[in-house]
This record gives sequence, C-alpha cells and structure tokens, in this order.
Amino acid sequence: LGEKNNGFDVLYHNMKHGQISTKELTDFIRERSTIEEAYARSMTKLAKSAGNFSQLGTFAPMWDVFKGSTEKLASCHMELVRKLQELIKEVQKYVEEQSKAHKKTKEEVASTLEAVQNIQSIFQALQKSKENYNAKIVEQERLRKEGATQRDVDKAGVKAKKATETYKSYVEKYATAKSEFEQKMTETAQKFQDIEENHILHMKEIIQSYSLYVDETHIQIGEVHHEFVRNIENTSVESLIQKLAESKGTGKERPGKPPGSSKP
Amino acid sequence: LGEKNNGFDVLYHNMKHGQISTKELTDFIRERSTIEEAYARSMTKLAKSAGNFSQLGTFAPMWDVFKGSTEKLASCHMELVRKLQELIKEVQKYVEEQSKAHKKTKEEVASTLEAVQNIQSIFQALQKSKENYNAKIVEQERLRKEGATQRDVDKAGVKAKKATETYKSYVEKYATAKSEFEQKMTETAQKFQDIEENHILHMKEIIQSYSLYVDETHIQIGEVHHEFVRNIENTSVESLIQKLAESKGTGKERPGKPPGSSKP
Repeated sequence: LGEKNNGFDVLYHNMKHGQISTKELTDFIRERSTIEEAYARSMTKLAKSAGNFSQLGTFAPMWDVFKGSTEKLASCHMELVRKLQELIKEVQKYVEEQSKAHKKTKEEVASTLEAVQNIQSIFQALQKSKENYNAKIVEQERLRKEGATQRDVDKAGVKAKKATETYKSYVEKYATAKSEFEQKMTETAQKFQDIEENHILHMKEIIQSYSLYVDETHIQIGEVHHEFVRNIENTSVESLIQKLAESKGTGKERPGKPPGSSKP
Repeated sequence: LGEKNNGFDVLYHNMKHGQISTKELTDFIRERSTIEEAYARSMTKLAKSAGNFSQLGTFAPMWDVFKGSTEKLASCHMELVRKLQELIKEVQKYVEEQSKAHKKTKEEVASTLEAVQNIQSIFQALQKSKENYNAKIVEQERLRKEGATQRDVDKAGVKAKKATETYKSYVEKYATAKSEFEQKMTETAQKFQDIEENHILHMKEIIQSYSLYVDETHIQIGEVHHEFVRNIENTSVESLIQKLAESKGTGKERPGKPPGSSKP
C-alpha cells in the first residue's frame, strides 16, 4: 500500500477508470460502425455505376451480375452497421449502470475511506509525539549532565514523563486505528476486485457480441462472393453470343433476300 | 440482316463496343480499389485511436489486442488495393491490344464492307430499273389501248424493251453481288464471332483474377478476425487483475506498517 496508505485511493480511482474504458469501447464500436457505413454507401454507388454502364456490346449483360453482387455486399455491411448501432445502445446502458453502481460503492466504502484518513492523521500525530518525546528525554539528559539545579531537572522530568505518556497513548491509538483500517481495507479491496472482475466480464461479453456480428457479416460476404463467381462462370460465352444474336436479329441464318426483290 | 443489309454495320460496331466494355471493367476495378483504400485508411486511423486510449484502468491492456487486429485488417485491404492496381495495368494493356486488333480487323474486313456497299447500291439501282420497267410497260399498254399511232406504240415498245434489258441486267448484277456478299459476309460474321468469343474469354480471365484477389483478402480477414477472438479469450480476467496489482503495488499482501513506525 506504500508509504501513504494510498491503496484505497488507487483502487477507488481504478474503479472510476472503468467508466472511461466503457466509453472508449463505445467510441471504438461507433467508429467501426461509421467505417462500415461509408463502405456500404460506396458499394451502393459502385453498384449504380455498374447498372449505368453501356447496354451495348457482347459483354454488357454481365454487368447485371456485378450490380447484383455489389448491392448485396452493400447490404451485408449495412446490416453490420445496424447490429453495431444496437450494440452501442447496450454499451451506453452499461455506462449508466456503471455510474450508478460506482456511486453506490462510494457510499458503501465511505467508512473505509474514513479509516484511511483516521490512520493517516493518527500517524502524523504519532510522529509528532515521538519527536516531542525524544526532544524531552534529550533535554532532561542534557540538564543532568550540565549539573543544572534539581528544580530544573525535576521540571524537565515532568515534561519528559508527560511526553512519554502522550507518545504511548498515540502508539495505542495507532494500533487500534491500524487494526480497524486493515480489517476494513481487506473487505474493501475484495469488493473493488469483485467490481473489476465483473467489469471485465461485462466488457468481454460486449466484445463477444461485436465479434459475433463481425463474423456473421464476414460469412455473408463470403457467400455473396461465391455467388458472384458462380454467376460469372455460369454466364457462358455462347449464351452471350446468343443473346447478342437475338437482340440484333443478325440471326443464325445466312444473310437473306431483301424484301421486294424478285425476278422479272 | 434486315432490309438494309446492315448486319455488317451491327457486327462491326458491336466489336468496337468491346473497347467500351473493357474500359468500363477498368473503371469498375479502379473504383473498387479506391473503396478498399479508403476502408484501409479508416482502419489505420481506428487502430491509432485504440492505441491512444487511456492506459489507466483494469481493461486498458486489452486495447493492444484491438490495435494489433485493426492494423492487420488495414493491411489486408491495402494488399487488395495493390493487387487490384496491378490488375488495372493488365486491363489497360488489353485495352491497347484490343484497339490495335480492331484496327487490323477493320482492314481485313474492308472488302466485305465494299461488298455490302456494292449490294446496297445495286439494290437501289435494281429498284429504280424495276420501277422504270413497270412504267414503260404500263405506258406501252396505255398507248395500245388508247389506239395511238403505230409509230408511237413502236417507240414505246423500244423504250419498254430497253427498260426490260436494263432491269434484267440489274437482276443479274444483283445476283452476282448477293452471291459475293453472302460468301464474304459468312466469313466476316464468323470472324466477328471469334473476336467476341475471345473478348469474352479475356474479360472472364480478368474477372477471375479480380475474384481471386477478393477471395484471398477475404480469407486473410477471416484469419485476422479469428486471431482477435482468440486473443480476447486468452486475456483472462485474472491476468488483467494481476497486471493491475503489479503496476500499482497494491499487492496481494495485507496492508502493512508504514515505515518509521516503532514502539517506544
């Protein structure tokens, strides 16, 4: 606990830092959500581009595959955004719960804080009374050696005795205060530890949800991608040539007679 | 081929549209690359945020896991950007090859274009000669019915005969032109079809590379994500509490004596 018995202070402030961690986690998730939303919007724009490409040329029908696939990618990322937005609400609830819990804990450990302040002030007084005791003893000795008057020696003796009693009484007070402090501090330290454990567990649960949503999205994206590959593969060269032939009427037949031509 | 024998025109312009398709594919890949780069940069920024979060609190060491994971995600996307940039160079090479090939093809099919123009102009002339023939026959009949002079009837007869011969000659010319046109057009149509098939195959190869790069990145992202989940799981509550205890010296021991206190 160090010289100043500031263990309580350290543990109390560490508990409060938990609120900062929770807010930071909110910020992290929010920033991730923003990034995913930007990506989704860009994908939507890209899909529109694909839809606006020329309708002409043998390749043109393939743009439908690109458009469809890119729109689905956009959807996947927007779904992640929605899930993360819901998660942020959960985290914000925890921020509030945490704040309330901390206030309650502060009240509950108030008597330990008092015990800390008590032992610190008694320790100060103990130090002072020890210095005073030492000084009075030294003074008494000095007068004896220098052959002072008996009256002066006796006076010094009275002061020394009084200083001794004060010192002893502070030693006892300190022992009492220490015992009380140790008992309360042990309980309070355990309480703070329990709070930290629950805090970390709660944070890990939030992170688990975050991970789950990211993973679900990842799987969906994989499926969209595989569908894209299949659709490209399934669009045969022949089918595109066929489509072209049908749309242009350049036909599979030999170039025929123009209407109206006939032999006389 | 329709009334105007414009099949050649249709097929020629369809070939040229292939260059537009190739440029559009370049644009699509480029836009995808831009989107991935923006995402990568945002991830890098997010990683920096995680690195700048408070060092205080029991949870704080966990930000290292977030930072590392997010930096790796950024790397995955940047690698995709690099691959797509290289692919764009490949596509741009194809754009140039295509342009050169089309110029060459234009020269090679020039005689077919001539045959088209020839049959079109002969057809026009045939139509005209037919109309003239019909007109001269009708005139001849009209004069005969109306009892015109033999001289006038004979004159009309001469014109009708001339018109008939002109018409017949255009019918023959048309037959010749048609035969030549059909032969050339059959060859040229096949050439254009071969060009389209090769074009589509080349485009599909480019798309295959694109798909491969996207899939490789997807797999890497999955690994980064699983590593993140593992690292979070492996950071136990106990280890964090331990770390905190060591850093603060609040110790596993009971609160001890302040230095300098001693009994008289």
